[in-house]
Amino acid sequence: MLSREGYHWNATEGLVKGLPCIGKIEPASNLQGENRSGYDVVVLGAGYAGLTAARDLTLAGYRTLILEARDRIGGRSWSSNIGSYPYEMGGTWVSWRQPHVWREISRYEMRDQLEVSPNQSTGKNFSTLTTKYGQRDMAHHEEDALIQSALRKLANVDDAEGKNAMPFPHNEGFVPETSKLDSLSLSDRLKQIEHSLSPDELAIAKEWVLATSGGTPENTSFYEFLHWWALSGHSYQGWVEDMIKYKFRGGQSSFAIRFFQEALATGKLAYAFDNRVTSVVDSGKDITIQTASGQTFRGAKVVCTIPLNVLHTISFSPPLSPAKAQAIKIGHVNKMSKVHCESRGLDLRSWSGLNSSCNPLTFAFGDGITPDNNTHIVAFGPSEKQLHPERDVEATKRALQNLTSMDIKRLVFHNWAEDEFAQGAWFFSGPGFITKYLQDLRGSHGNIYFANSDWAVGWRSFIDGAIEEGTRAALNIQRSLRQKTI
Amino acid sequence: MLSREGYHWNATEGLVKGLPCIGKIEPASNLQGENRSGYDVVVLGAGYAGLTAARDLTLAGYRTLILEARDRIGGRSWSSNIGSYPYEMGGTWVSWRQPHVWREISRYEMRDQLEVSPNQSTGKNFSTLTTKYGQRDMAHHEEDALIQSALRKLANVDDAEGKNAMPFPHNEGFVPETSKLDSLSLSDRLKQIEHSLSPDELAIAKEWVLATSGGTPENTSFYEFLHWWALSGHSYQGWVEDMIKYKFRGGQSSFAIRFFQEALATGKLAYAFDNRVTSVVDSGKDITIQTASGQTFRGAKVVCTIPLNVLHTISFSPPLSPAKAQAIKIGHVNKMSKVHCESRGLDLRSWSGLNSSCNPLTFAFGDGITPDNNTHIVAFGPSEKQLHPERDVEATKRALQNLTSMDIKRLVFHNWAEDEFAQGAWFFSGPGFITKYLQDLRGSHGNIYFANSDWAVGWRSFIDGAIEEGTRAALNIQRSLRQKTI
Repeated sequence: MLSREGYHWNATEGLVKGLPCIGKIEPASNLQGENRSGYDVVVLGAGYAGLTAARDLTLAGYRTLILEARDRIGGRSWSSNIGSYPYEMGGTWVSWRQPHVWREISRYEMRDQLEVSPNQSTGKNFSTLTTKYGQRDMAHHEEDALIQSALRKLANVDDAEGKNAMPFPHNEGFVPETSKLDSLSLSDRLKQIEHSLSPDELAIAKEWVLATSGGTPENTSFYEFLHWWALSGHSYQGWVEDMIKYKFRGGQSSFAIRFFQEALATGKLAYAFDNRVTSVVDSGKDITIQTASGQTFRGAKVVCTIPLNVLHTISFSPPLSPAKAQAIKIGHVNKMSKVHCESRGLDLRSWSGLNSSCNPLTFAFGDGITPDNNTHIVAFGPSEKQLHPERDVEATKRALQNLTSMDIKRLVFHNWAEDEFAQGAWFFSGPGFITKYLQDLRGSHGNIYFANSDWAVGWRSFIDGAIEEGTRAALNIQRSLRQKTI
Repeated sequence: MLSREGYHWNATEGLVKGLPCIGKIEPASNLQGENRSGYDVVVLGAGYAGLTAARDLTLAGYRTLILEARDRIGGRSWSSNIGSYPYEMGGTWVSWRQPHVWREISRYEMRDQLEVSPNQSTGKNFSTLTTKYGQRDMAHHEEDALIQSALRKLANVDDAEGKNAMPFPHNEGFVPETSKLDSLSLSDRLKQIEHSLSPDELAIAKEWVLATSGGTPENTSFYEFLHWWALSGHSYQGWVEDMIKYKFRGGQSSFAIRFFQEALATGKLAYAFDNRVTSVVDSGKDITIQTASGQTFRGAKVVCTIPLNVLHTISFSPPLSPAKAQAIKIGHVNKMSKVHCESRGLDLRSWSGLNSSCNPLTFAFGDGITPDNNTHIVAFGPSEKQLHPERDVEATKRALQNLTSMDIKRLVFHNWAEDEFAQGAWFFSGPGFITKYLQDLRGSHGNIYFANSDWAVGWRSFIDGAIEEGTRAALNIQRSLRQKTI
């Protein structure tokens, strides 16, 4: 089924909008007639947070309606299978050290549907580093040693590589004084340690974190980086293992669809895709939701999974708290570009590259072998060097070729920065944001419960955090609805 | 509330059977009259697997009955709060790298109810190693280096410290040839590497694994150790972090009771404690369960969470498959002793000890500070050196004092090896068992679904594995019951 989202380019067809997706829902709605009220819960958004909440609530017997602006499930996380080969448009890797994701993979018995993304045994087995000193290839063990050294120095705020400062990543406040570090930007932190970094290490530390934040050195929170570092066991090896190693052989939409199907099988799920919400009015008795198409829906509770950067497009009545409103106004900083490329032959299957030389794409690696026996490369570029591939395919190809020489057969991408329902990629905070606003963002507002990976406690910004949040919202709503019936 | 389980000793009261437990359920049953049939599901056992299955099934609206032989929830995992201080009778530590446990801790918002168990900053900060060469104290960093070196050599079957042999611990078969290692006992593996081990390392490698298996060098599977090693990120540091670091400040029964309370709040849960099951008869139409008290219960489905070593006490009709029956006959090897001790003063708060000199207790460490400002020490001893503290308190005190000198004020323990509903501690396999029987143990039998940490895929033997299994059973039963109603 073809989603209207994402772009595909090859030489014969040129640029085409829309990609196949097994998470495209057809027909777009299962509503019958004017069946728009009487819902126990209305879930705004069908990303992982919304899917999890809707699944848990329908399993518990509650009449639940999903309203989604897109034509597919998954939100900022989805995959497109092209010629049976999956390209991950946003979100890719999962791990058994991501507890909420793993609980679901285990529950759906999908653990044998994962495969290893990086590979160091096929083709030319090397890494390319490009800095202002030029471009050079190196062995992967040399690359690993450089990245490890750079990241350790970056994280070493406590003579223990962050282990003392943030021992418990699922409880950031466990060492209260660490919150002081949230005032630092990446730029601030680099200034603190630049005396100890080689030019290669400086380039790597900067580009690695920007390929994490999708922001600039000035608007990237060092504290948020430290959180990612702690989540991955305070090590570069853990980072690789937990964040960029295992992915779904059939694409992650094969995972997301399980939640949707399970909810549907309860007979309690109504849904309407292609239906953008414009306002949410809580009368205290029930909640009225208006959509851009002019439809009105009513329910007792709302789970709002709209991303932080999009919340400003929705009118809430009564108005949100000043702190929530302020956090929404500030938003997050991630304007990452993610571009997939099919490159002729298998030379680059084991390649990786990092470019710190003002190239719009800064980080890339071989991610798989396509059905045509070519290399699939995935590349990232932060906002500082922002790329809009759909406007300039040639610039995109040049940005890829600046990483290393390649013969590009195909491009696949989704421009998250310009996506009206995302207005950015995964959440990444600016300095001071988390310690100031996280608790407010997590709070409910009357009968409206907010659930999004953007304000998860653990794997914030990840699929895992979205499931964490959907789980939380569903449980809190169940508790509240159950009290009402007693 | 006082459970009849566990033992307490101090000088004034002597040995007393029975300990307070917040998981003791009173009254023992909520059955009204002869309400013994018509259940959608009957769950045998109220450990974490049974609690999870019952919670998920009642949340999904199914009439569920729990039958439990004990007077409390938790099975082989429970805590006793004595003077507000928790002693963990079986199962203690949890981690965010245990995905099923963490999903629940996160869901119940208990992440700020954890505290750190080991401590290296109070009292005499040292470790005591006792071998046939005598007893000596050493700094913790020396102890850590010795254990790390010993375990690395032990795990190094692949020149990669086990990372290549078992990269994916939640999918043991990911590298198929690794299953060959399941023929090795600990004794076999130690013979392979003894040329490279110092006497200290040999003593540590052996006692560490036996304090994991509760067995003997001959009946302990090396492959099962490798699985634990892989689960903890192929490192000693990971082992400490994920297996013996964070515990519930209020005792783990404060966690288990949440599952029970949530199930109860649905209004769909019936339960009868003090009710040992003797037979399960599946007519194909429904299932009849007989208990030792002469009661008969009926339901459409059964979740059997009875531990492997106890399954032989229950009669199944039709009989279980030959492979399941054979696995039950073999059982697992863990006959671990676990003893808590309150030792006068704080000298030992940061102490740890390992004794490889035929002492019935081989491994111990300071685990907390009691309300009387004494040290709480937890000690373990494998079956080879088996201890029965309730029969000989003085031998138990000597075994503790052989670890290091201490002034014992109190003992608290549960003898799992002699517990009729456990017949051993946590699961640990003998050589060849997992590769031969795991799949059979996981299979259902007509309308009977087997769920126990003993045959979990991931954190087998842990609370996490029990939740994994309860989750699996509940989902499979929901799928089956839903198909019937369509």
